[in-house]
Amino acid sequence: MRHSCAHLVAAAAQELYPEAKFGVGPTVENGFYYDIDFGEPITEEDLGRIEARAKGLIKKGVDFTKEEMDIDEAIKMFKKMGQVYKAELLNDLKTKGTTKVGEDAEAELSGDTVTIYRTGEFVDLCRGPHLKSTKDIGVFKLTKLAGAYWRGKSENPQLQRIYGVCFAKQKELDEYLAMLAEAEKRDHRKIGAEQDLFFIDDLVGKGLVMWQPNGTIIRNEVEKLVVEKERAAGYVRVATPHMAKEELFLTSGHLPYYKDSMYPPMVMDDGTYYMKAMNCPHHHLIYRHNLRSYRELPLRLAEYGTCYRNELSGTLAGLLRVRGLTMNDAHIYCRKDQIKQEFKGVLDLTVGYYKIFGFQDYWFRLSKWSPKHLDKYVNEPANWEYAESVIREVLKEAGVKFVEVDDEASFYGPKVDIQFKSVIGREESLSTIQLDFVAKKRFDLNYTDDTGKENNEIFVIHRAPLSTHERFLAFLIEHYAGIWPVWLAPVQVRFVSVSENHAEGARKLRDEFFNAGIRADIDTADETLGNRVRKAVGAKIPYIVVVGDKELSGEDWMIRVRGQEKQEKMSQAEFMARLDKEIAERI
Amino acid sequence: MRHSCAHLVAAAAQELYPEAKFGVGPTVENGFYYDIDFGEPITEEDLGRIEARAKGLIKKGVDFTKEEMDIDEAIKMFKKMGQVYKAELLNDLKTKGTTKVGEDAEAELSGDTVTIYRTGEFVDLCRGPHLKSTKDIGVFKLTKLAGAYWRGKSENPQLQRIYGVCFAKQKELDEYLAMLAEAEKRDHRKIGAEQDLFFIDDLVGKGLVMWQPNGTIIRNEVEKLVVEKERAAGYVRVATPHMAKEELFLTSGHLPYYKDSMYPPMVMDDGTYYMKAMNCPHHHLIYRHNLRSYRELPLRLAEYGTCYRNELSGTLAGLLRVRGLTMNDAHIYCRKDQIKQEFKGVLDLTVGYYKIFGFQDYWFRLSKWSPKHLDKYVNEPANWEYAESVIREVLKEAGVKFVEVDDEASFYGPKVDIQFKSVIGREESLSTIQLDFVAKKRFDLNYTDDTGKENNEIFVIHRAPLSTHERFLAFLIEHYAGIWPVWLAPVQVRFVSVSENHAEGARKLRDEFFNAGIRADIDTADETLGNRVRKAVGAKIPYIVVVGDKELSGEDWMIRVRGQEKQEKMSQAEFMARLDKEIAERI
Repeated sequence: MRHSCAHLVAAAAQELYPEAKFGVGPTVENGFYYDIDFGEPITEEDLGRIEARAKGLIKKGVDFTKEEMDIDEAIKMFKKMGQVYKAELLNDLKTKGTTKVGEDAEAELSGDTVTIYRTGEFVDLCRGPHLKSTKDIGVFKLTKLAGAYWRGKSENPQLQRIYGVCFAKQKELDEYLAMLAEAEKRDHRKIGAEQDLFFIDDLVGKGLVMWQPNGTIIRNEVEKLVVEKERAAGYVRVATPHMAKEELFLTSGHLPYYKDSMYPPMVMDDGTYYMKAMNCPHHHLIYRHNLRSYRELPLRLAEYGTCYRNELSGTLAGLLRVRGLTMNDAHIYCRKDQIKQEFKGVLDLTVGYYKIFGFQDYWFRLSKWSPKHLDKYVNEPANWEYAESVIREVLKEAGVKFVEVDDEASFYGPKVDIQFKSVIGREESLSTIQLDFVAKKRFDLNYTDDTGKENNEIFVIHRAPLSTHERFLAFLIEHYAGIWPVWLAPVQVRFVSVSENHAEGARKLRDEFFNAGIRADIDTADETLGNRVRKAVGAKIPYIVVVGDKELSGEDWMIRVRGQEKQEKMSQAEFMARLDKEIAERI
Repeated sequence: MRHSCAHLVAAAAQELYPEAKFGVGPTVENGFYYDIDFGEPITEEDLGRIEARAKGLIKKGVDFTKEEMDIDEAIKMFKKMGQVYKAELLNDLKTKGTTKVGEDAEAELSGDTVTIYRTGEFVDLCRGPHLKSTKDIGVFKLTKLAGAYWRGKSENPQLQRIYGVCFAKQKELDEYLAMLAEAEKRDHRKIGAEQDLFFIDDLVGKGLVMWQPNGTIIRNEVEKLVVEKERAAGYVRVATPHMAKEELFLTSGHLPYYKDSMYPPMVMDDGTYYMKAMNCPHHHLIYRHNLRSYRELPLRLAEYGTCYRNELSGTLAGLLRVRGLTMNDAHIYCRKDQIKQEFKGVLDLTVGYYKIFGFQDYWFRLSKWSPKHLDKYVNEPANWEYAESVIREVLKEAGVKFVEVDDEASFYGPKVDIQFKSVIGREESLSTIQLDFVAKKRFDLNYTDDTGKENNEIFVIHRAPLSTHERFLAFLIEHYAGIWPVWLAPVQVRFVSVSENHAEGARKLRDEFFNAGIRADIDTADETLGNRVRKAVGAKIPYIVVVGDKELSGEDWMIRVRGQEKQEKMSQAEFMARLDKEIAERI
């Protein structure tokens, strides 16, 4: 149906623009696009005309008719019609046996004939299949107009790409459009720019995030939470450099296996250096720097470590695909009989975080090995069986939703990913807990057991409950739609002075709140009171206090509470106590 | 005198080891060394014998006699004596006109004769001058024995280098030796290893510090202090990547001028990247990312930013010379009329830190431009004059010790360094405050003034009161000799259980203290109580609590307070209150 809708839209476009030359028109998720050369570019407004004409064709009911045609004849026909792009595709098909551009147009030649479809006057080279008639197409909407080079090459002419979505029922279309609107409203790049949270600068480079003061506040509040919770959970913190010699990454195996994802080497006077793409090799060195006793286990080394990964610049976008990533990382070194308790500890920590942020729609995914593919997994069958069974016990005992997947573990051990359905309908894996059977051998990790003997059965758990600052902040921005809870809000209280006479008093109040640990600011700018209040509301500041004679005289304040119609009346002391509580309890 | 002492020691060595062959014996700071080939290497103990024999020669009084000698005759004489190294030097002198090895032996040939000095039986090739007699040498001590290749080349034979120090008076020698002992006791590398603060790992690379949990605690406490004080002083925090494209460093001027000190480039699919050697370019981009109003000034952007500088691997040592450095950085963007107040703010902040750490022996050094060397300085005479005069005012009004130095400013503006005499006598510059007239042009920095016009008279202050984590921690380790004040101590309280029966109770107490925010640990190891207490004392833990029946019954505790002979009696509540106070007040 979506493919037929693409033909329909092209047919409508041809009626309105008889000179239009057509490229390709494949389906995409929930819809389709069509690349068209209109000669003179059309505008967003013209999309409406095309949409209306296409709707007319649905009402009218035009059949899709299929026809086999000799390839040379087809080339001749499209040439005659001035459809040079179609003719080019057919020529490729004839000479190379295939067209390798786009989903729709990719065709293999079999015999000397090709298939074309007609929709009224419109003729398209197409394998089909199609609906019987345009009447059978449900509901659709043209959503976007963009530029696209013919066959994706910048030396070719630029066509215009018309995007559309298409569903069987109006309700489905409405729901989808609502979700699109919500996604746009919550877009982390849009909110990031509006709230001055972060930006990407061409002089610094793609995928390298510049955190502005507001974004740094949120980042640091998240990190403070982590430091506090990890301390309580028995972690100790370390700090390691962002690079190391190639010898370290040869030891860890990142070289050569992971080389393509690493930044290029830097050759110095004492060897070759690489930026680290993960923190584990550095942490393993800290573990093994001291002789370790069984009394020290489990040892939990934590660091919000910044790693650098070489992604192709074309794939980088906002905070979701970056090159510099600061990870909520830690490595737990434990004995085999401690794996269960440590997995449970990480799970509790993770779920505890989720509760604070109000995440609900998530489930666990246990990726296991397969004894059928021994080549894919480190050869420690007893450890695989044991570890997977205790992890399963932990998940069951915790009563969380989980699925098990065979043959999807890492080479080095089983893992648990935590999957999310984000507010805007995207499924993603936010957190991970991975068990590692391999590190002990690669890094010769060991400890002295209670009999005084050296024991090298050390298991490592890699975990990152809050992912990286970059991905997690993107997720949070979408989750809250930029309406930050008080504890995360860059500005928690804004004082707006009624007139110049109240500016000094407002400033003193702001300082009093600020010195009490509250992020308070002040707006005394040379604008109307109404404008300034509206600006504060627009900035989604949780509390706004207009400071006039009454407020400065010690009377109760009328406080504008975000999201409430009615102002709340309370004394300054009550207000400060409320803020303290909300900040301390992370509400 | 020190040079004569070198000859004296060689003469004594020759008496004891007639077969010894002598290399060179120059003076160094406070003393001298002599490189000698003993055939069979001597030991530290043998140094005592040489020292005693040399002291005998002082008592005896042997004259230093000078003699002119034909160079060929001298070569013949040294060869006959078996002094092959001296003969080699003379040969060089004859054929090349110079010997280029060591201070002492470097000689220029003038005419056909050379000068030799005799001390009893000992003959040395030497320009002199020398004392009249060994009697005139004050007091000396042989301090160290080390290996040294002849003429510094590893393909040559290895000689033994005897180090000595020499002073006119016994008191001077005693003072010097006491300082040496103190320096050794406070050596930050030694204490760093003893206390598991940090290490350097060959697999990671030289100059890249691996911070262990104990070191990370101290580092983080320092950073916490900074974040707190900077917040109160009106700074806002940012977070920036550790690298950028070359275009940024071309804009800042780091390329090409500073290129040799930067890590080599990394070529990616979208351009060439460099590790940042300073944080300022990134901060300038954050400043200029938004339109700035006069109301926002001064804007103070702070970040504990990690920079990477390419120092030669041979020059790297402990925390004092590193390649990766995490800087207590901030940049203040202000109007010209705000320079004075901002300089004063930075000075107050800095002196406030020093007070907390108990630093006393420091002074300020104002480096000014010179109108005579206009080529060395940015051409803004009025700004130079104005800035230097307001900085001088700030220093005077603060009543601090300061000196002014002409013609030592940076190219871009005047600066104030804060000089220290460290506990072990080393003078160093720990903090810096620099004014920058150039950034505004290079980065096109500006703001909208109160008339609505664009104004590009933006001044930047670079400042790093606590230097880098690396240098500052080295300084702190030496300053405290590893005896950390309570707020910085990695372990603040240790509970030592009397017997296995008290282990559980001790563990509960430890948890109670830990959950109250105190860094408490526990030693229940299988060793005698005495050993465990001694270990805790050796680790310089501020408070040690031995946990037995009495302590668990709710009676007052007897607490071992670091540095006190007598234990202190107090209740658990009193003890916790004391700890809270010491931690909060950073005592």
